[in-house]
Amino acid sequence: MKVLAIDTSNHPMSVAVVEDDQLLATTTLNMVRNHSIYLMPTINNLFELVKWQPTDIDRVVVAQGPGSYTGIRIAATTAKTLAETLNVELVGVSSLAVVARNVLPESERVIVPFFDARRGNVFAGAYQWQDGQLVNLIKDQHLAMATLLDQLAAVERPVTLVGHLTKKISDQFEQLPANVSLAPRAYGIPSTYQLALDGEKLPAVKEIDPFVPHYLRITEAEANWQKLHPGETRKNYVREV
Amino acid sequence: MKVLAIDTSNHPMSVAVVEDDQLLATTTLNMVRNHSIYLMPTINNLFELVKWQPTDIDRVVVAQGPGSYTGIRIAATTAKTLAETLNVELVGVSSLAVVARNVLPESERVIVPFFDARRGNVFAGAYQWQDGQLVNLIKDQHLAMATLLDQLAAVERPVTLVGHLTKKISDQFEQLPANVSLAPRAYGIPSTYQLALDGEKLPAVKEIDPFVPHYLRITEAEANWQKLHPGETRKNYVREV
Repeated sequence: MKVLAIDTSNHPMSVAVVEDDQLLATTTLNMVRNHSIYLMPTINNLFELVKWQPTDIDRVVVAQGPGSYTGIRIAATTAKTLAETLNVELVGVSSLAVVARNVLPESERVIVPFFDARRGNVFAGAYQWQDGQLVNLIKDQHLAMATLLDQLAAVERPVTLVGHLTKKISDQFEQLPANVSLAPRAYGIPSTYQLALDGEKLPAVKEIDPFVPHYLRITEAEANWQKLHPGETRKNYVREV
Repeated sequence: MKVLAIDTSNHPMSVAVVEDDQLLATTTLNMVRNHSIYLMPTINNLFELVKWQPTDIDRVVVAQGPGSYTGIRIAATTAKTLAETLNVELVGVSSLAVVARNVLPESERVIVPFFDARRGNVFAGAYQWQDGQLVNLIKDQHLAMATLLDQLAAVERPVTLVGHLTKKISDQFEQLPANVSLAPRAYGIPSTYQLALDGEKLPAVKEIDPFVPHYLRITEAEANWQKLHPGETRKNYVREV
């Protein structure tokens, strides 16, 4: 299976081309740049390196969120457009699960990948390797860093945080709970090779059109809209507004 | 510190540009292709992405071997040429240590990265994280896979092998010793981001000219030369012949 994997859900923009279980080529750009400008040229460049035509791919795997609003929209839109126009399969994978996979399956620790969600909040989930399978213990969620650490202290098992501890997040607590350690920042960079490996095994979405990012929180615009329309609900803000 | 990191010591060809502890961009090509053709264009492409001029870099960090003869010569020659012409620092790092760094520092296991060295042999070393530092327990060496597994069985501590177990290597043994496990293949891809982080902390070589790859075995040509010249020694075959 020829897979194109895309992750622009956070600060790094990463693309990989993978055939079956083998990485062919990958590029990660980790600067504050507009992912929308660099994504398609990076995909093109990798296709040229491995001598693939776009029509060669069987499946597009995309990190579906959580992450930056703009980032996950760029990834989802690009992935949907490619899957639709090339008539290939589409699979979405949790952006947090991808980072959790940086920890080797031999680890018995609870793995908690996290992304800065601004204002002292993070996106985080809890994962653990069990018999070579990465199992999701606590669903990906949007919460205050302080709340996350309280939850992790209560776990009473060794926990590894994996992510980039920005100053705004580290300002939210005095020290980590005794059972929690922080992996060096380098291990928080997502691997789109791991994303592809994960996405190869999952069933493809049945319909491409309704595929949307996993935001896990509402936008300011949505919050404002809700204030103006009390009692009304919008199940799918991005598609409807 | 602006670092260019290069690893072409084995099947993957990987380049990263790193500033202080932050990854800016990296590309890995993992196909059977001529690394010498793709290395300079890949470096150029990354410089363009991060808007660096070659003269901006402070240091070149190169995976010095062990690995394929041709691969480590390409990396060393390119790194030396860049360091010399740009008048910047040069640092060599063990290609095996780079792979060992794919395992998170929380691991208490003995980490044994390995590369296929053909004919049932491997290059391998033993490493362990101690207080956040990667410590080399057994020097990188060239040996039969069967011999390596005998050595690891004797360690009587949990060991993780990290690398690509090709059929030629797996043919060399029935099963792994009870204390030894094999990490999934994806974790055997070297990270030139980790290479750069390692190389940032090491002292630069004093003289660029005498810098040579770590072959850890002699070439067939050398072996033939030694047969023809019994009693004579060549300390530095590549430089002298």
